[in-house]
Amino acid sequence: MDKILRINMGADGGPKIKIDSLGDYAGLGGRAMTSTIVAKEVPPTCHPLSEDNKLVIAPGMLSGSTAAMSGRISVGCKSPLTGGIKEANAGGQPSQMLGRLGYAAIVLEGKPKENNLYKIFINKDGVDIKVDNSLCMLGNYDLVDKMKAEHGEKIACISIGQAGEMKLAGASIAFTDMELRPTRHAGRGGVGAVMGSKGVKVIVIDDAGTKARGPANPDNFKEANKAFVAGLRKHSVTGEGLPAYGTNVLTNVISEAGAYPTKNFMWGSFETCQKISGEAQAELENARGGEGTATHGCHRGCIIRCSGTFLDKDGNYLTKQVEYETVWAHGGNCCIDDLDVIAQLDRLDDDFGLDTIEMGATIAVAMEAGLAKFGDGQAAINLVKEVGKGSHLGRLLGSGAAITGKVLGVERVPVVKGQAMPAYDPRGVQGIGVTYATSTQGADHTAGYAVATNILGVGGSVAPLKPEGQIELSRNLQIATAAIDSTGMCLFIAFAIMDQEDTFQALLDLINAFSGQSLTGDDVNALGMQVLKAERDFNTRAGFTKQDDRLPDYFKKEKLPPHDITFLVTDEDLDQVHNY
Amino acid sequence: MDKILRINMGADGGPKIKIDSLGDYAGLGGRAMTSTIVAKEVPPTCHPLSEDNKLVIAPGMLSGSTAAMSGRISVGCKSPLTGGIKEANAGGQPSQMLGRLGYAAIVLEGKPKENNLYKIFINKDGVDIKVDNSLCMLGNYDLVDKMKAEHGEKIACISIGQAGEMKLAGASIAFTDMELRPTRHAGRGGVGAVMGSKGVKVIVIDDAGTKARGPANPDNFKEANKAFVAGLRKHSVTGEGLPAYGTNVLTNVISEAGAYPTKNFMWGSFETCQKISGEAQAELENARGGEGTATHGCHRGCIIRCSGTFLDKDGNYLTKQVEYETVWAHGGNCCIDDLDVIAQLDRLDDDFGLDTIEMGATIAVAMEAGLAKFGDGQAAINLVKEVGKGSHLGRLLGSGAAITGKVLGVERVPVVKGQAMPAYDPRGVQGIGVTYATSTQGADHTAGYAVATNILGVGGSVAPLKPEGQIELSRNLQIATAAIDSTGMCLFIAFAIMDQEDTFQALLDLINAFSGQSLTGDDVNALGMQVLKAERDFNTRAGFTKQDDRLPDYFKKEKLPPHDITFLVTDEDLDQVHNY
Repeated sequence: MDKILRINMGADGGPKIKIDSLGDYAGLGGRAMTSTIVAKEVPPTCHPLSEDNKLVIAPGMLSGSTAAMSGRISVGCKSPLTGGIKEANAGGQPSQMLGRLGYAAIVLEGKPKENNLYKIFINKDGVDIKVDNSLCMLGNYDLVDKMKAEHGEKIACISIGQAGEMKLAGASIAFTDMELRPTRHAGRGGVGAVMGSKGVKVIVIDDAGTKARGPANPDNFKEANKAFVAGLRKHSVTGEGLPAYGTNVLTNVISEAGAYPTKNFMWGSFETCQKISGEAQAELENARGGEGTATHGCHRGCIIRCSGTFLDKDGNYLTKQVEYETVWAHGGNCCIDDLDVIAQLDRLDDDFGLDTIEMGATIAVAMEAGLAKFGDGQAAINLVKEVGKGSHLGRLLGSGAAITGKVLGVERVPVVKGQAMPAYDPRGVQGIGVTYATSTQGADHTAGYAVATNILGVGGSVAPLKPEGQIELSRNLQIATAAIDSTGMCLFIAFAIMDQEDTFQALLDLINAFSGQSLTGDDVNALGMQVLKAERDFNTRAGFTKQDDRLPDYFKKEKLPPHDITFLVTDEDLDQVHNY
Repeated sequence: MDKILRINMGADGGPKIKIDSLGDYAGLGGRAMTSTIVAKEVPPTCHPLSEDNKLVIAPGMLSGSTAAMSGRISVGCKSPLTGGIKEANAGGQPSQMLGRLGYAAIVLEGKPKENNLYKIFINKDGVDIKVDNSLCMLGNYDLVDKMKAEHGEKIACISIGQAGEMKLAGASIAFTDMELRPTRHAGRGGVGAVMGSKGVKVIVIDDAGTKARGPANPDNFKEANKAFVAGLRKHSVTGEGLPAYGTNVLTNVISEAGAYPTKNFMWGSFETCQKISGEAQAELENARGGEGTATHGCHRGCIIRCSGTFLDKDGNYLTKQVEYETVWAHGGNCCIDDLDVIAQLDRLDDDFGLDTIEMGATIAVAMEAGLAKFGDGQAAINLVKEVGKGSHLGRLLGSGAAITGKVLGVERVPVVKGQAMPAYDPRGVQGIGVTYATSTQGADHTAGYAVATNILGVGGSVAPLKPEGQIELSRNLQIATAAIDSTGMCLFIAFAIMDQEDTFQALLDLINAFSGQSLTGDDVNALGMQVLKAERDFNTRAGFTKQDDRLPDYFKKEKLPPHDITFLVTDEDLDQVHNY
């Protein structure tokens, strides 16, 4: 990974390809790479869809190596949804492939002068970019099929669906998984709209003829990797819970904890959540004769394998095993308790290229506005289909919960910095509320997953319903996460490294053996802080203040059943999160 | 004006009426009253449609007296459009009537628990509030007809149309004129949505049995009023231009100056602007046998009389003589050069209760997105009709240009703080660009009308295409305007008081004779600064920074023909406007 691919989409005479050396960006990966480039090169007050914005796609520091779990990729830009900096993170195959091809980042710059749609092809021989308007308004599934027909089965794709082409603020970027399906998404913040504004429909990657990135110290690397994998297998979450039931293992847990946002964040438990739980999902998948759970990683080198496939009633592939966040967003939050409906919604979102969290939150807001009844699955499907059609209603919904709430006159809209909250009510898990409020990313559970310590007993224990200890917890997690997001490692390794000192040491050893450095835990922390500071600085220059680090007022006033609790962390305390 | 009427719409058991003494608010009027109450009583981070927001309606200091031009009224709240403080200002009869009834302000607080629509009736005997759901989704014209049938012809109404009931951010509040037509609007910032969120459809005012507010010193008052009126009659703008052609006298002038935003701010001149100019409008109105121009003031006591009536082709009343801003917004900005089309759009906006500036800017953005062709009048009419229907598209458009641009993926959206720019391109009149950028209100020409000095040669002369002198000009105008908006005086008096020292002195004498004070010019300035500071402070607490005091980037990059000029005032200079 010794080069950066820059494509100026707005160059005179058509897109211009440039291969840059790493320069100042040497040593950075993933989120550290995307956020550093965006903070340095994008004017913070620019329009997110303008030529001044840049879309940065960066494999992690370890991506392309044989390190376990190292296949995550980061996408960065100024967000059309939040107006601040954005790093959206995805699995899939492209990260490993780009790493093997030596690209530390792809940077899409400028804006095409004509209204054309481009395909970019990258292999060991170089980079090619062509107009291909036949791709116009294809869904991600059809698009990938077309790419397979043109380039064979050994490729990986980074693409947008209709939502990205329409430049909707809920648009995602899809990354194909090991089965070459567009099921892994950099979902949050409208990164797909920025790719759409650059006129790029798909980046096809073929890593044939490349090999894994070699470590500086192969023996130490191998040993550290072994210890790291053993640590992941040993921990109950990464070794048992996630493989057995996938991320959806959380549904029953969070609902029982009274922190499961139900009916547009009106209740903290969903009465019929068992019907859509990970347990029910596993039973259904197994009964339908698919490969069942615990069969899929989202990328080469995954050993947790928390994914699977979801077959429809007729036994045909419908979508990947639906993730917890999606089951919640399209399920409990809309009072829908039918896994087949939820899986169809997941498939539609993946195909249109939409963030499932944002869409679920948006449909619930639309339901509160009376556009459909809570619990009406067919109505929810029809609403999401509007986005694919590009109808006025569809464009509105595809623009996310904040705008939908404004246009439909709804006051109760669960967003921070314009981005919808994920599947944990901040009143029931006060620590995640601190992360939602103060993250540079808008409401984002992955930015500092306090649920681990508030509910799951990982990394110690902080009582979920009390404000005490949440600031420090969220701060430490946000710092650690920013670092992990830079390594290319799946965030789920955090469960094991938070609880098992030797697994954290194995991770450090792995990084050091690979890079030839001798980083300590403090160095990793320092990297996390550096990333957050760059992001905060960008947001400040974009006009964000501490008033943006707040939950909507109603979380402080409306009591959430069953605990009948409001969000209790004070504004003054929230302002201490980023004091480091 | 010794009392404040407060109605808590959210009280247990239904709305609760309370008559307050003035207390801390004694001596304030108009904008000084609304902004002081909002800044003091509304939590700056509250949701604009929440129970915590307040809608304040306040006659000016001199309203209800016999002072000429004193019938303007201010409406204040936290704006659903900008997220900051809002004062929207209107003519019509209610200001004089409320003044005579002794109300210095009406404050609507809280939020009804049930989904009911209320009518408030105010006369000399007191205040009555009743549920009247038969008013639901009436346009302002039908509503006022209904009120006339119930309460006779001597009333005045303050009301919302369908847009306000739908809580759209482009919704206005209508004030009836001397002919009891809902043609005068507090247009900007979505104040109608806040009235809608309070569940109040209409406030009916009957001032029968009251008399004009008596001045402290009747002889001085009479004399000062005479001098003041003479001054207004003497000045070419207030004595000739405005009476002869109405505000639309500006169309030819601004287009010739190359500052007339045409085709969604792409050009600075409109080739066929003569067809929609004030001159053409006067000819048309006279030819159709109506009362012609120079026949209407918008309120009792107006001596400029810049309004008139617009009859349709069959000689029937259609709307008031359409104002310059509306002729531009629905005309030149959309490349529509047909006065009959524009008048129909004005009528629709008034009926649905929509800000004509915001709607015109929004239609132009929709045209740029391809929803209709520039110049297609029937398509524009159809689009505005969607708002009245409450269709999804209509709700979107009624939410204003900023949100419409986001949902339709348009980058060139001429807004500041989310509010659409009025009828002067900030590149062609750099002084008004400074006001747009730095006003507490979002893009607003009335907040500091630098066009006067940049183009019309009033109040001295500052070259329109150069950055030099614009900061000081805008600063002084913003301060003076905040003061004038507090007196209840029509802002058009500014032309005369800026050019004629004796007319300014007559205004001071008028205020002093009325109130028994001895204010100097410095005191008036101090009042203006005090109002602006309260507004700025509110906005800061709501999370605004200097980044919000900026024009969209493209005004700094895209050259405006015919002068081929960008906005040249630097960010650093903009940050000096409010240093006083």
